[in-house]
Amino acid sequence: MNALTQVAGYWMDLTGIFAFAMSGAFVAVRKNFGVFGVLLLAEGAGLGGGLFRDLVIGVVPVAFTDCGYYLMPVAAALVVFFSSRVHRHSGVLAVIDVCDTAALALFGVTGAVKALGHDFSWPSAVALGVASAVGGGILSSVLAMEVPSSLRWEQDLYVLPAVTGAGSAILLDAFGVLNGVTAPCAAVPAFGLGLLATRHRWRTPRARIWRNPFSGMRHQPAQARTASTADSERTQLAGPYNERRQWVATTSSRVRPAKVREG
Amino acid sequence: MNALTQVAGYWMDLTGIFAFAMSGAFVAVRKNFGVFGVLLLAEGAGLGGGLFRDLVIGVVPVAFTDCGYYLMPVAAALVVFFSSRVHRHSGVLAVIDVCDTAALALFGVTGAVKALGHDFSWPSAVALGVASAVGGGILSSVLAMEVPSSLRWEQDLYVLPAVTGAGSAILLDAFGVLNGVTAPCAAVPAFGLGLLATRHRWRTPRARIWRNPFSGMRHQPAQARTASTADSERTQLAGPYNERRQWVATTSSRVRPAKVREG
Amino acid sequence: MNALTQVAGYWMDLTGIFAFAMSGAFVAVRKNFGVFGVLLLAEGAGLGGGLFRDLVIGVVPVAFTDCGYYLMPVAAALVVFFSSRVHRHSGVLAVIDVCDTAALALFGVTGAVKALGHDFSWPSAVALGVASAVGGGILSSVLAMEVPSSLRWEQDLYVLPAVTGAGSAILLDAFGVLNGVTAPCAAVPAFGLGLLATRHRWRTPRARIWRNPFSGMRHQPAQARTASTADSERTQLAGPYNERRQWVATTSSRVRPAKVREG
Repeated sequence: MNALTQVAGYWMDLTGIFAFAMSGAFVAVRKNFGVFGVLLLAEGAGLGGGLFRDLVIGVVPVAFTDCGYYLMPVAAALVVFFSSRVHRHSGVLAVIDVCDTAALALFGVTGAVKALGHDFSWPSAVALGVASAVGGGILSSVLAMEVPSSLRWEQDLYVLPAVTGAGSAILLDAFGVLNGVTAPCAAVPAFGLGLLATRHRWRTPRARIWRNPFSGMRHQPAQARTASTADSERTQLAGPYNERRQWVATTSSRVRPAKVREG
Repeated sequence: MNALTQVAGYWMDLTGIFAFAMSGAFVAVRKNFGVFGVLLLAEGAGLGGGLFRDLVIGVVPVAFTDCGYYLMPVAAALVVFFSSRVHRHSGVLAVIDVCDTAALALFGVTGAVKALGHDFSWPSAVALGVASAVGGGILSSVLAMEVPSSLRWEQDLYVLPAVTGAGSAILLDAFGVLNGVTAPCAAVPAFGLGLLATRHRWRTPRARIWRNPFSGMRHQPAQARTASTADSERTQLAGPYNERRQWVATTSSRVRPAKVREG
Repeated sequence: MNALTQVAGYWMDLTGIFAFAMSGAFVAVRKNFGVFGVLLLAEGAGLGGGLFRDLVIGVVPVAFTDCGYYLMPVAAALVVFFSSRVHRHSGVLAVIDVCDTAALALFGVTGAVKALGHDFSWPSAVALGVASAVGGGILSSVLAMEVPSSLRWEQDLYVLPAVTGAGSAILLDAFGVLNGVTAPCAAVPAFGLGLLATRHRWRTPRARIWRNPFSGMRHQPAQARTASTADSERTQLAGPYNERRQWVATTSSRVRPAKVREG
């Protein structure tokens, strides 16, 4: 049973890495990078978070020792690189979004479990879980010179599934019921919350100074322009990203009135 | 006595982390990031340098083991996130600037002392001291897609206090008088020098090719435009950053004639 | 004989670091950074890759223990900082380009050899060789807020010499003939290939969606504009970079018709 769970956990890890790597490869293709750029961004997005976690814990990074871990991003990069069909179907992007959410939840759990296994305290374990979940996306964004999605308020709640997953694992451990069977289950509420956040377009709260009309941030246009530049940058995406563009446009139009009310 | 010094050193560390984290959180709010962005940038700015130092030395990063270290940036992030008053008072920014300078000096000292304690040679110790002092600021700038202040010549002498602090610690060690009492004292001249640099607006020297009118960099406008774009980006900051904006404007007007003379 | 090889290997390492550091320092001067910025970028470009490799392997980074390693970038930074002659002679840039290619090949080999010596499998060794070769350039580009050359398709084949070098070292090891004499020889084909790529302006292949006219990326101008902005950014470089600018211009004009044919 335990061996079975381990195998299941291993394949869930690989799926998460594949999903992250697909996102990284999409960014690279969107930015018109070469084949090595697509490979590097896929590897960075898929393995960056776990690499950081392992370096902090002080073990040789699994990203460089387990052959499945570093071949998964190669596969994702090849799919994104050679298939033009994968860019055309908006369903693919939706599936990747869902897989990304699942991967965030899962990596939050596995990161926290690994940290607990190496005698870290529970807040450190939560921090490491979150870092291993969002680290890959941040690394690939930085390499592609984009502001990471996990920092931007107008993006989906990227960090929430990771925090929830890591927190659930900590709770299970506190009640002494953290084992190979319950650990994957800890990812389920985090995944559900992430899906809810995507579905209902929950946004990350911004600093109070941006929400309070009398707080002094009156000359918002300059900043708003920055935000809308980022949007229009995304909107410049042609053809295959049409669906997503429309989605962004819808979001913006939902968000903007609120912004005007604030200003 | 020694225990007292350790406690004092610990609290000085926390103060430095708090100051760095405030700077990081301010950047995040200025960039209109969400709450997770503010948290991540505060943690990155406060702990990034020490994390790098500990990874190089090969110990488990204190940023993930000591609860005070990772809670301090959370506190800084919450203050910057929820208080709009902290953005309105220019005095707050001035205090943070002074605390930043102190933190740079202090981190330079503690980084060098920790490296010496792990049998690094003195140039490596200086390098690690400087890296642990400026690392956090560089990390948060990279995450926010800004050119790090420590690299830009038109910023204050960011690196100088760190270098002086690390150098003083090395000198004390060379004379065999480095201990719990003298180590914090090594930060004092570095802090003083940093304050002097801020007060008199000392700038980092630029490469000779930028200063020599006959060296071939004649078509400076293109590059100067880049610099002024960075300025105007800062000037776009509304309301609460007014004072700082004015300060930047003053600086620019002092600097620009010299640039014209060069061209 | 073996001692002689080690000395030769050490000096080849230093030459490679010097070449990388020169590139980093050039970027810093072009971006109008201060003296600390030039130093930091030179150190980052020269040592970043090896630092990453050593952190992953789990040894104390040689970049912080061997005095020759961290003094070489300082020397490179001082040359670039103080000499305006080095910027004026296009021959210098050409020499640095050749040295860069040699360094990529060499670092690919040494990275793979070091990884093999620490019991990594051969794909991990290739990955670590490539990472230690391109890591420095990526770090300095990220610090300077530029998209790393190794990712961009319109740049030379940056990654190819590193991959070839690491692959040759792996092949030699597989045949059991990897030793102090053959290891440097493994860099020779990689170096030759790199020179060929530069000479004939080989470009990295892009994703299929960019090459297939019916794949949906029809509204290319938006993306093409991004590419040409990057070009014009480079073209804005004045005086000393004239030769290189012309070179870029030639390249662009060779590339553009192909792009039109694609669209």
